[in-house]
Amino acid sequence: MREVFQQELAEVREGLVTIAELVAASIANATRAFNESDVTLAESVIADDDRIDELALTLDELAINILARQQPVARDLRIVVSALRISASLERMGDMSSHIAQLARYRFPEKVVPKGLRGTFKEMGRLDSEIALKLTELLRTEDMALAEQIRSDDDLIDDLHLSVFDKVLGETWKGAAVDTVDATLASRYHERFADHAVSIAKKVQYLATGDWAVPPVSSTVSTTATV
Amino acid sequence: MREVFQQELAEVREGLVTIAELVAASIANATRAFNESDVTLAESVIADDDRIDELALTLDELAINILARQQPVARDLRIVVSALRISASLERMGDMSSHIAQLARYRFPEKVVPKGLRGTFKEMGRLDSEIALKLTELLRTEDMALAEQIRSDDDLIDDLHLSVFDKVLGETWKGAAVDTVDATLASRYHERFADHAVSIAKKVQYLATGDWAVPPVSSTVSTTATV
Repeated sequence: MREVFQQELAEVREGLVTIAELVAASIANATRAFNESDVTLAESVIADDDRIDELALTLDELAINILARQQPVARDLRIVVSALRISASLERMGDMSSHIAQLARYRFPEKVVPKGLRGTFKEMGRLDSEIALKLTELLRTEDMALAEQIRSDDDLIDDLHLSVFDKVLGETWKGAAVDTVDATLASRYHERFADHAVSIAKKVQYLATGDWAVPPVSSTVSTTATV
Repeated sequence: MREVFQQELAEVREGLVTIAELVAASIANATRAFNESDVTLAESVIADDDRIDELALTLDELAINILARQQPVARDLRIVVSALRISASLERMGDMSSHIAQLARYRFPEKVVPKGLRGTFKEMGRLDSEIALKLTELLRTEDMALAEQIRSDDDLIDDLHLSVFDKVLGETWKGAAVDTVDATLASRYHERFADHAVSIAKKVQYLATGDWAVPPVSSTVSTTATV
């Protein structure tokens, strides 16, 4: 039974890696579509998001199935519950890629990237793509150095996100309202993408280090009293 | 054992209702702070969000504890897993309220609501507050008519969200970049708030109607083969 369980956990993990790979391709393509106004590529990112959603759903069903049949406890239970949460975050990362691609498609044949911010969005896209690749590796290897790198990359994204607002709210900003809207949304999507990656990295870290304390069973009543 | 489990499930449900109540208060106050540039109220919304996060975390620990000790299967398992997801969505709804309050605080003493959009944001805030109240009732009563109403309200919010873009991208828009940014973000936060409510309503509906098919155990292998 234990062996079957370990094998099923491995399947869950492989499933997460597969979805993370698709998310990494998705953000890389969305970034390229956005920066180069490539509407065909944008459309393929949007279409491929269905595949990510589908795999996330399949993975959730597998995880719930494992809960039902294997009835894991302690750390094993945490792993399965975390997998459910990680899959939800990966699915949202795919949505963010898709939203960025949608911006490119809406504005086509106009360039979606407002002048004066092209460098910033190129860098945000590069960092998000990096983050997605590191996340894939983190899920595959549990190499915690990657979790730290994802956090640092996210700090850089946050700085860039703030710099977008500085730019569009600054006196030198000559963009039209459409540029301001695009910049605001695109920046927000990039920032949320990285946030989800950090939240996944934290979960992997908890699991690997056992840092995520399992509350003692006896505390249930007092815990719920505060709800 | 069964009785204890039912009692614990009731506790989970009460916990979700309590969080939903706080979220309802939070969006109502955020909306008022936003529309009336009430910075004190905005700050209280931001501070109260910690309480929502804390309760969501406590509820998650309770749910995981139930999984570990009661090892529910079939529908009971779905209920507990759904509770984890519902609590995550409620927590995000609290974040959206907090983001709306932050916009009010950042722009203070300026009005955050751009002229020409005050009526729209008032209506979005009213609808989101309505949705949160209906969601609380839905979680309390499982009255499915409420799930339908939440869906319809969300359609109205989506229309308003699109109308905000029509407005700021229209020829008559005279707002500064700061107004465009505020309108874009506030509209997005309201829209996401309602989306989370719809996603929760769907989960409650699945649970109440049993519409969420549990995949047969024997399909596990073939299911995972597609991952």
